[in-house]
Amino acid sequence: MVSQVVVDEKPPQQLLSKKAGCNSHGQDSSYFMGWQEYEKNPFDPVSNPSGIIQMGLAENQLSFDMVEAWLEKNPDALGLRREGGASVFRELALFQDYHGLPAFKNALARFMSEQRGYKVAFDPSNIVLTAGATSANEALMFCLADHGDAFLIPTPYYPGFDRDLKWRTGAEIVPVHCTSANGFRVTRAALDDAYRRAQKRRLRVKGVLITNPSNPLGTMAPRADLEMIVEFVAARGIHLVSDEIYSGTAFGEPGFVSVLEVMAERGAAAADVSDRVHVVYSLSKDLGLPGFRVGAIYSSNAAVVSAATKMSSFGLISSQTQYLLAAMLGDKDFTQSYVAENKRRIKERHDQLVDGLGEIGISCLESNAGLFCWVDMSHLMRSRSFAGEMELWKKVVFEVGLNISPGSSCHCREPGWFRVCFANMSAKTLDVAMQRLRSFVESTTNGAAALRRATVPARSISCPIAIKWALRLTPSSADRKAER
Amino acid sequence: MVSQVVVDEKPPQQLLSKKAGCNSHGQDSSYFMGWQEYEKNPFDPVSNPSGIIQMGLAENQLSFDMVEAWLEKNPDALGLRREGGASVFRELALFQDYHGLPAFKNALARFMSEQRGYKVAFDPSNIVLTAGATSANEALMFCLADHGDAFLIPTPYYPGFDRDLKWRTGAEIVPVHCTSANGFRVTRAALDDAYRRAQKRRLRVKGVLITNPSNPLGTMAPRADLEMIVEFVAARGIHLVSDEIYSGTAFGEPGFVSVLEVMAERGAAAADVSDRVHVVYSLSKDLGLPGFRVGAIYSSNAAVVSAATKMSSFGLISSQTQYLLAAMLGDKDFTQSYVAENKRRIKERHDQLVDGLGEIGISCLESNAGLFCWVDMSHLMRSRSFAGEMELWKKVVFEVGLNISPGSSCHCREPGWFRVCFANMSAKTLDVAMQRLRSFVESTTNGAAALRRATVPARSISCPIAIKWALRLTPSSADRKAER
Repeated sequence: MVSQVVVDEKPPQQLLSKKAGCNSHGQDSSYFMGWQEYEKNPFDPVSNPSGIIQMGLAENQLSFDMVEAWLEKNPDALGLRREGGASVFRELALFQDYHGLPAFKNALARFMSEQRGYKVAFDPSNIVLTAGATSANEALMFCLADHGDAFLIPTPYYPGFDRDLKWRTGAEIVPVHCTSANGFRVTRAALDDAYRRAQKRRLRVKGVLITNPSNPLGTMAPRADLEMIVEFVAARGIHLVSDEIYSGTAFGEPGFVSVLEVMAERGAAAADVSDRVHVVYSLSKDLGLPGFRVGAIYSSNAAVVSAATKMSSFGLISSQTQYLLAAMLGDKDFTQSYVAENKRRIKERHDQLVDGLGEIGISCLESNAGLFCWVDMSHLMRSRSFAGEMELWKKVVFEVGLNISPGSSCHCREPGWFRVCFANMSAKTLDVAMQRLRSFVESTTNGAAALRRATVPARSISCPIAIKWALRLTPSSADRKAER
Repeated sequence: MVSQVVVDEKPPQQLLSKKAGCNSHGQDSSYFMGWQEYEKNPFDPVSNPSGIIQMGLAENQLSFDMVEAWLEKNPDALGLRREGGASVFRELALFQDYHGLPAFKNALARFMSEQRGYKVAFDPSNIVLTAGATSANEALMFCLADHGDAFLIPTPYYPGFDRDLKWRTGAEIVPVHCTSANGFRVTRAALDDAYRRAQKRRLRVKGVLITNPSNPLGTMAPRADLEMIVEFVAARGIHLVSDEIYSGTAFGEPGFVSVLEVMAERGAAAADVSDRVHVVYSLSKDLGLPGFRVGAIYSSNAAVVSAATKMSSFGLISSQTQYLLAAMLGDKDFTQSYVAENKRRIKERHDQLVDGLGEIGISCLESNAGLFCWVDMSHLMRSRSFAGEMELWKKVVFEVGLNISPGSSCHCREPGWFRVCFANMSAKTLDVAMQRLRSFVESTTNGAAALRRATVPARSISCPIAIKWALRLTPSSADRKAER
């Protein structure tokens, strides 16, 4: 009954799926490559003071002391006990209902509402829990798009989206080109242009996906822009996904406006589009808990909630973690003081970076949220091109010892921008980073010139940002070629 | 700039993906429908003694006291502290490396090796952590199969596979038909037959997937059968996935044999196929922790490990949970005594079910693992057909008040078999279930006759299982029709 063994001569890769071999997961982009370099030689103030400083990672390490103090005061949350002392371990060990722990969903709904100044009420039954926003975004794509369908996404956008939205779903991303001329705000013209390009590629456009606050820009979408985007998706009969995982980092005025607030204000007019607007949330940024893998989809579309809930089987949140966070987010006094103080600290660190950069003649896009700045280093490039950007990026990583993310990895169309994270290190380490950058800037001709001009620190620049362009070199022919 | 709103007249469902609307997630199978009925009216010995008893859920509730005792002795594991008392909360909050916590992967590798009598050594770097086996199985399919590629799976198989393996991947399942004539063991002829059927459907066969111990059979694959299956995949140049999530429940002799043990014994001959053999594991059954969402893929294929690791971003295990389990599984004394005592308890409960059924003339497939028995109730059907099976199932659920899983939901080709779980309830509740079933059996003509014949409890029956067939009715013409 046992047949002869026929040795398979094909390399094993050929037996794998196309996905396993393809590169659309984006692992090889400079965004992730910088991480790998950092991991080989990570900075430590004591043991490795010449190592690479990680400024490519949007982690929030600023407010752990507050969470730790809460944990000290509330040992039952980690200890999996009720107030009376009885263990809930058995219940949690078995709890794998993909609807989630009711106490956690209720607490999360309230927390999300609090983040939005209680202008939006979240119905816990419209929440789908997922193992992080990565999983939430992919599940939404699986629900909304078939292979070959497209989503329009304003550039620059989070490099991980190529993996999260396209890799396993087969969906396509069509970039909505935004420019520094208006501070990278999304315009109706840019949306229409992207829609037309998708049509030319014979892609069926299923929706628009925005990050608000924006990753990598660190800006909140103005209310008027959100209204315009909602009008666009309403008119086109398509979906809108608003990834709001940075909503709790919004430290600037006039404050964060969720797309759901805009929907609420539409009143009866929202009916035409309300079941096509979906929000993604997570506790990775706002509470600094990426390791706990807590994400969520919020949608008023019953079919989406139903399908996404079934899909959440592929990435449920540990019940142990749900229990802990139900208690933490259920403590309104804690969340209120945490959010306020966390924002204050983010702003302080943000200002430290912007001021430090300003002192060495480097300007940033004016921002009011996020754990990073969108930094213009175009004057430091030897050529105004993506080749020049990559050359500069490699110098900054390997010579200066700072891992930052080049704009090209975020699909930015203008070379010379970089995402620089500031909340995943101490203020002292950020100082070291600024000192290193100063030395580098002084060593370059253009940098030194800009530094001399920067007698008054610019803080950050509003758009239109004339000064930024004034610092730029005339593009060479080589650059234009690269820019095509 | 704002355009007129064009009201979308299409129903919103049409804007969703085909996946969101289709039924291949299997939610509507009788397997899940039974759960829904249970949830409406769950049995409780005190508050709802006439409710439905859940016997469709393969949970292990037999050994929580041992885990709880360990947690009491090791409070740092839940408290996220090192032995010295220092908190590791910050590290864990940030830890989202998809390679997993090294301490946890090392402990898991050792535990998996221990489960296999240390006959197989697990290399932690070949482990990919996933949020449960559900996620592991789907990720493997994404790695191994493209849309329209097929995996051969012996029947009866776990109803969730239709969702886990097919729904989002687009892969197909071609059943390998197994029969009661040889105790549902997989034969080379059945594999060849399935392969031919796949070819006829113009499907590219990418592999075979087995569950060992089998869900729903509760049987361990004999070593010879594993050798035969390995020869088959070697000869065909395809993959073999062995889902071994019940390996720690193997209570009978001659003990559990992993496909990796068979591979190790092949020595040099294994080289031709070793990078096409992959194992899925989980702590949901062996440790009774489905709520904690801990699964794993084990593979010697570097490309699969690499792709699956990237995919694990969509379902990472909470670092909080990894920390707890690193400590628990790292305690060798605990795991040894837990596994031995857990198996003893599973066997005891298994025997209670088999004896109880035997006393009322109902026989089971002889089994030696798992948290369920594969029970033959064909003599209680009014017609030997799947219609008869469904009719009987509804009676058992709605009239008898036991949620069991009909064989048809497991794609069994012979009507009359049911998966009956025994480890998710107390011994007393199992007694109540047996009493209810006795009353039902007495009320049916064929059941009462079988009950009279069952003077000596049959325990469980070896195959070939003559007695089972002797109890069956002659099939009616309606049945034959239904069986097609």
